[in-house]
Amino acid sequence: MHHAEASNFASGLTKKDVYAQVVEHSRGLFDGQRNWRQNLSSNLSNASSLIYHALHSLPSPSSAVNWCGFYVLDPTTPSQLLLGPFQGHVACQTIGFGRGVCGTAASAQTTQLVKDVEAFPGHIACDAASKSEIVVPIIQKGKVVAIIDIDCAELNGFDEDDKEALETIAALLAESCDF
Amino acid sequence: MHHAEASNFASGLTKKDVYAQVVEHSRGLFDGQRNWRQNLSSNLSNASSLIYHALHSLPSPSSAVNWCGFYVLDPTTPSQLLLGPFQGHVACQTIGFGRGVCGTAASAQTTQLVKDVEAFPGHIACDAASKSEIVVPIIQKGKVVAIIDIDCAELNGFDEDDKEALETIAALLAESCDF
Repeated sequence: MHHAEASNFASGLTKKDVYAQVVEHSRGLFDGQRNWRQNLSSNLSNASSLIYHALHSLPSPSSAVNWCGFYVLDPTTPSQLLLGPFQGHVACQTIGFGRGVCGTAASAQTTQLVKDVEAFPGHIACDAASKSEIVVPIIQKGKVVAIIDIDCAELNGFDEDDKEALETIAALLAESCDF
Repeated sequence: MHHAEASNFASGLTKKDVYAQVVEHSRGLFDGQRNWRQNLSSNLSNASSLIYHALHSLPSPSSAVNWCGFYVLDPTTPSQLLLGPFQGHVACQTIGFGRGVCGTAASAQTTQLVKDVEAFPGHIACDAASKSEIVVPIIQKGKVVAIIDIDCAELNGFDEDDKEALETIAALLAESCDF
């Protein structure tokens, strides 16, 4: 199989089916890749591509996802996130814990499912096109080591199915990668 | 300015104009970002997005670019490249020096401009959709530290203008980032 085929998804699948395929492919991709420092970047790069293309294989609003990627804990500055691998337009490079949707997920250690980013206090508008957002913390040994951040160009882009699947993927990343 | 606007390009620009905008925005994005280890990932993530969206703002064949990203030197395995940040479908995680177009650019320390990947001896088909490719080495202190790799779904996707501009971007990355 060509590697690219891992991020091709048949049309007509349900969101749960598509996410199940993401988890299965992720397991394969991450297997045996935890020990090299740079592999974190490989794993997060491929994971952002898998999730982005999975959501784009679905009907609206999932197909309107316009950014999908990671922010990782800055090892040199306490309580700061640094931009990691992503799919989409150029993004903010640093985000403080507690700032905006990403920073809130990091400081609260809980998923933020935001139906309308304009209504979120302190929202950081990296891209004016983004209307809704979901941010899921990746927690290792009780500490947030990274977040999954996904933006959608439509309101109400995400639901409980996204939350549940992305939390499974976050747990898989936490157990598969050395952050 | 929203960060995402850096990767919006007006239509009707020439390839040279678009690449000039990529270099200008890259300079701004990389400025002051060299000292943190993770910033390499931030810089390469934003650079892959900038270049990808720049090429997609142009007519065919540039608009048919289907993968744009980086492989970085593996610090733990001699003469091996590891997948870095990219835009596009899931990709091969490791490439040995001398293998395929990427490995040849790394071992020869020269840009590989390949009009038809099927005609390139030992081509690694990460994605069967890719028809042509350009790979530009990033050289620091005489050593290849990473490569820029761009695939196109059309034959003859790249020309001397791409080569010249991408070599300028590779030089900027070499001087701006600690690999």
